[in-house]
Amino acid sequence: MRRNGDPEMILTRDGFDGDAVVSDGNKFITGNGKFGYRGTLDEMTREHCVGLNIAGLYDGVEGKWRETVNAFNPFYLQVYADGKPLCAWSDNVIGHRHSLDISCGVFSRETRFSVCGGTLELKAQRFCSMADVNVLASRLTVSSDVDVAVEIVAGIDDDVWELNGPHFSSVAKGCREDMLYAVGSAQESGTSVRVNCKFSSVPNRFDGRFAHFYVTVAAGKTYVLDRIAQVLVGDEQPTPTEDYDALYARNADMWSKMWDRSDVELEGDGIDRAQFALRYSIYQLLILTPRGDCSIAARGLSGQTYKGAVFWDTEMFLLPFFMNTDIAAAKRLVEYRIRTLDGALAKAKSYGYKGAFYAWESQDGYDACSDFNVTDVFTHRPVRTYFKDKQIHISADVALGIIRYFDKTQDNELLLRGGLETLLQISLFYYSYSYYNHNKDRFELLDVMGPDEYHERVNNNAYTNYMAYHCTVRALELCRALRREFPSEVAAVLRRFEPDICDSLDEWASKLYLPACGDNGVMEQFDGYFALEDVTAEEVRKRLVNPREYWGGTTGVATATRVIKQADVVMLAVTLPQYFTVGQIAANYRFYLGYTEHGSSLSASAYALAACMTGRAEDAWKWFLHTAEIDLNGGGKQWAGDVYIGGTHPAASGGAWMVAAQGFEQICRPKFLHRVVSHHE
Amino acid sequence: MRRNGDPEMILTRDGFDGDAVVSDGNKFITGNGKFGYRGTLDEMTREHCVGLNIAGLYDGVEGKWRETVNAFNPFYLQVYADGKPLCAWSDNVIGHRHSLDISCGVFSRETRFSVCGGTLELKAQRFCSMADVNVLASRLTVSSDVDVAVEIVAGIDDDVWELNGPHFSSVAKGCREDMLYAVGSAQESGTSVRVNCKFSSVPNRFDGRFAHFYVTVAAGKTYVLDRIAQVLVGDEQPTPTEDYDALYARNADMWSKMWDRSDVELEGDGIDRAQFALRYSIYQLLILTPRGDCSIAARGLSGQTYKGAVFWDTEMFLLPFFMNTDIAAAKRLVEYRIRTLDGALAKAKSYGYKGAFYAWESQDGYDACSDFNVTDVFTHRPVRTYFKDKQIHISADVALGIIRYFDKTQDNELLLRGGLETLLQISLFYYSYSYYNHNKDRFELLDVMGPDEYHERVNNNAYTNYMAYHCTVRALELCRALRREFPSEVAAVLRRFEPDICDSLDEWASKLYLPACGDNGVMEQFDGYFALEDVTAEEVRKRLVNPREYWGGTTGVATATRVIKQADVVMLAVTLPQYFTVGQIAANYRFYLGYTEHGSSLSASAYALAACMTGRAEDAWKWFLHTAEIDLNGGGKQWAGDVYIGGTHPAASGGAWMVAAQGFEQICRPKFLHRVVSHHE
Repeated sequence: MRRNGDPEMILTRDGFDGDAVVSDGNKFITGNGKFGYRGTLDEMTREHCVGLNIAGLYDGVEGKWRETVNAFNPFYLQVYADGKPLCAWSDNVIGHRHSLDISCGVFSRETRFSVCGGTLELKAQRFCSMADVNVLASRLTVSSDVDVAVEIVAGIDDDVWELNGPHFSSVAKGCREDMLYAVGSAQESGTSVRVNCKFSSVPNRFDGRFAHFYVTVAAGKTYVLDRIAQVLVGDEQPTPTEDYDALYARNADMWSKMWDRSDVELEGDGIDRAQFALRYSIYQLLILTPRGDCSIAARGLSGQTYKGAVFWDTEMFLLPFFMNTDIAAAKRLVEYRIRTLDGALAKAKSYGYKGAFYAWESQDGYDACSDFNVTDVFTHRPVRTYFKDKQIHISADVALGIIRYFDKTQDNELLLRGGLETLLQISLFYYSYSYYNHNKDRFELLDVMGPDEYHERVNNNAYTNYMAYHCTVRALELCRALRREFPSEVAAVLRRFEPDICDSLDEWASKLYLPACGDNGVMEQFDGYFALEDVTAEEVRKRLVNPREYWGGTTGVATATRVIKQADVVMLAVTLPQYFTVGQIAANYRFYLGYTEHGSSLSASAYALAACMTGRAEDAWKWFLHTAEIDLNGGGKQWAGDVYIGGTHPAASGGAWMVAAQGFEQICRPKFLHRVVSHHE
Repeated sequence: MRRNGDPEMILTRDGFDGDAVVSDGNKFITGNGKFGYRGTLDEMTREHCVGLNIAGLYDGVEGKWRETVNAFNPFYLQVYADGKPLCAWSDNVIGHRHSLDISCGVFSRETRFSVCGGTLELKAQRFCSMADVNVLASRLTVSSDVDVAVEIVAGIDDDVWELNGPHFSSVAKGCREDMLYAVGSAQESGTSVRVNCKFSSVPNRFDGRFAHFYVTVAAGKTYVLDRIAQVLVGDEQPTPTEDYDALYARNADMWSKMWDRSDVELEGDGIDRAQFALRYSIYQLLILTPRGDCSIAARGLSGQTYKGAVFWDTEMFLLPFFMNTDIAAAKRLVEYRIRTLDGALAKAKSYGYKGAFYAWESQDGYDACSDFNVTDVFTHRPVRTYFKDKQIHISADVALGIIRYFDKTQDNELLLRGGLETLLQISLFYYSYSYYNHNKDRFELLDVMGPDEYHERVNNNAYTNYMAYHCTVRALELCRALRREFPSEVAAVLRRFEPDICDSLDEWASKLYLPACGDNGVMEQFDGYFALEDVTAEEVRKRLVNPREYWGGTTGVATATRVIKQADVVMLAVTLPQYFTVGQIAANYRFYLGYTEHGSSLSASAYALAACMTGRAEDAWKWFLHTAEIDLNGGGKQWAGDVYIGGTHPAASGGAWMVAAQGFEQICRPKFLHRVVSHHE
């Protein structure tokens, strides 16, 4: 296992690049599951998208999207030498680099300036403590080869970068000796957010907002200023904190333990790049380790994009990692869904359905998804989108998470305390959503949207139907098994349903339509998909009039074609391979590949896993790198219509881990999948 | 009854208006059901949209929309005086007027020119003979108060105005003494179109294209040149024709007979404008009297807009007029649908349904409607539209036409020769299209589009569900009655279906969901309509970025609002009032009015009829005038996205007749509707 300071664990940018400030904010992010601190420099402000994002604290300002709250930034700091500010982009910069040590989650920067005829060097380090999640610490050192009089302005920047704020109704701030503080209340809930920042020296003065330190840095000497911040949400109370070195050591130690149970080493020649990308992906997952009642947001803790909401990404792409490396964290993710069952019941009811229809964008169970989630680039009007009301596969994704967690842990307790009810409510939802086709004597799931969001309101989406079927069959199986062992507890759960619920679901599942693979092995993504225009994603891309256009909807370039955002059938095949032969997986892989735009960061890892399952070593490697390097490349889609959707891509990181830890081994044993396909048609 | 030449029957434009050339082409149109000749001047060409439109002859050129064919124009004529062409827009025009005598379908023009120090007057008259539908005749007179040497260039213009041509693969033309001819073959079918044009004088020379006449018009004298054209389609043979005066008299006589059975006289003060508009509407209907196997196109014979196809307009807005004035013509309209049942069976089958799914845009039963019927004004890309595959009410509209015709005529013969089978196939289509909602123990019609096309893919559209229900119940009733009288014939019809077809349809209809009016009397247009944004049509209009934008689709301004193109529920209430109380009709009228854009020319007459039914005299009058004057005002929507949809509006004319002949009388007897509402809910 690589340790703190190992150069193979360090990501570096040499030189300052003004155009990369926002993407570096994502790429060099630090965090500890409760807070994320973007990879910006101390002298930066809201215009550089500095962000200290709080997990799971949501706030909505009237008429705008509800989103997570960014806290006040305790680490604002500006050094002045010779009366002039020293910034990474100043004229007198001689050299700059910043780096992220993924072995211990420490962000560092070093910048050298030409000052007073000599060279002054600024260094700073920063981390969000994994050992004490309310604590963030930073150390500044200033050294010079000539004597320089320096002023340091530091403090808590309450001019917070927000997408849909302002989230604080008022801010109280002040200074007590060596400590600054700022306290505000979130507008909607009134939840208080307090940021304390303690300096290692007493400032010379406080101007009401920032502290000022007047220092002469003597030639050859080094000036050090440490800052220890505590961020307290709600009724959390401040605790005494250790000094920087002690905090640093404890943080590094905790990271070391986490790496011990999480690291995946690749073997072979020329794998350095891939190994780093994989570890970087694991780093991105570790800094999201869920705390308290929270789950993980789709853009992690990199900001407010996607409203800090929890998507299906969690169950499908993050849960596998945590289930294999940190079962307590995995349990939190599963419990989050069980705890928010009420929200899912309410959502189903609001649409006239029974059972549990989970939020597409969950904020503690509330669905933050708008019916107008995209802005048209031509008219700048909101576009009616169907993520919220038609992407019904979310409930089955949630169910699969519970089922997989149970399969791993045999945790009957979790099933009895909400898990089983959640599973049955999810099945009941599909039951009530479905229609009976009297011409074909089968139930169908009509008017849905699969993971491929470019095709709205389709019938019998393969991914959705199979997932609903599978989770219902498993839910009934678990229910029966549990009833044998805990008859009265299960009876109590079942009393919340109609008396014949299990029989109804049983009968229903046996008549739910499951599209079969054709003679060529290909499964149709939804009714009528094969009849759409047969054109590749690349060809369709050329039809764009505006590069930010939304590809779906009525007028999107993909809508009337076979071009898809991501391949639902490939995703289904890697998720529930028992319904496919290896030959069928290969056939679907080949068929859908050219049509796939990979407009979702979830797409590449599904293809990578399918490539692994079918012995396509080169393809698997290519898709793996694509997935593992998304955040390193600052890639992924930045815009959906006029809406900014940038940030980190935890699901891609989770996907990279899945490919490395669960996929690659299959390439050497491609026959593992030769199970019998046993489903009705 | 008004006669030929009565000034109250003449529509006139004084002065030439270059901007009105295209709309005058519609407004001053002449026709005889087989041909329509646009109201253009003899010196005009394709750039002025001169058109001699042939009813029911369709041609498609690869990759373009299939449409009716325009014949070669036999009436091109250019007079030269003093070497200069005399056009209505020439510098030397002293005065111009053109007019249409709707008593006999004669178009006239008079233009005076300043020539050689004197005044030269050109007059021309033209008509499509109602007495012999292959014949068109024109008379030119030239007079002057000074001697003028004149050259007349006249002949058959084969440079045809076409929207999606060229439709003739080759043209043969020539001159035999006093007759020119041009013959071409439609590209798709090879059907020949021959235009002969006979002059009353032998031309001085023929230049290969046009005939030239050199004439000196002496002061105070009048030069006359008659042209008698025959247009022969397919294997029609030329017949000897009479001279202009005889043809004129026979045409006027035939018109007189038609007016005798069609005229509607309004009584009261200040009704001159309305009376003319009503007669003008009747004129527009009379020139469309169907001939041969044809029905009536949505834009009549005014050109190729809407592909010359037959829409639901025919059954819902035209059939009532013909059924009350010309039962033979009405029968042709009904027989057209029975004859094209095969096309409807094939369309249903192509979508996986049973029974008869009629063409949204029928060209002899073939559905000319494209899946991409609108072009986006921003991207200029085709937009996926759902007129063809989701506007399933068309089949019930067709059924209602047959039922109404039978109710009027008791024509058992028509039912036995296809009518009954058509009705049952239509019901079977709805049966197979529907899904069973096991939660609510009812059948539903999902994923449809009602007449209000701005809301695509809705569930349980009120108009559609009631029409399907009503036509099925009536079809079964007619079947049972007919079986008593003609047991073996009906048994033969029923052998084409499953043995229990009647029982299945009976059971199905009894469980088909019919939305009820709420306590406030309002019926929801479709599932979820009430939840849409509550905003008026006027408010929504302000949101347009481009005035030609399509209001529907995903990104249209109306889509996510209550704003509708036309009111489905109001249309339903005036079509099947037995399912409503007068109070409910009034409630729906009031409720939907503010939301209605009237983007369809069918909208105003539905509102007019509802106003009549609920005693709203002023409103009825307003909507009546709006409907009756659409073509007089050159109004109606000219664009759907980037697609030109101009032309005459026969359905509005038919609607105006319905309001005048069937609506107005109800205003004095507003209680006629107090029938018992008897339908299940």
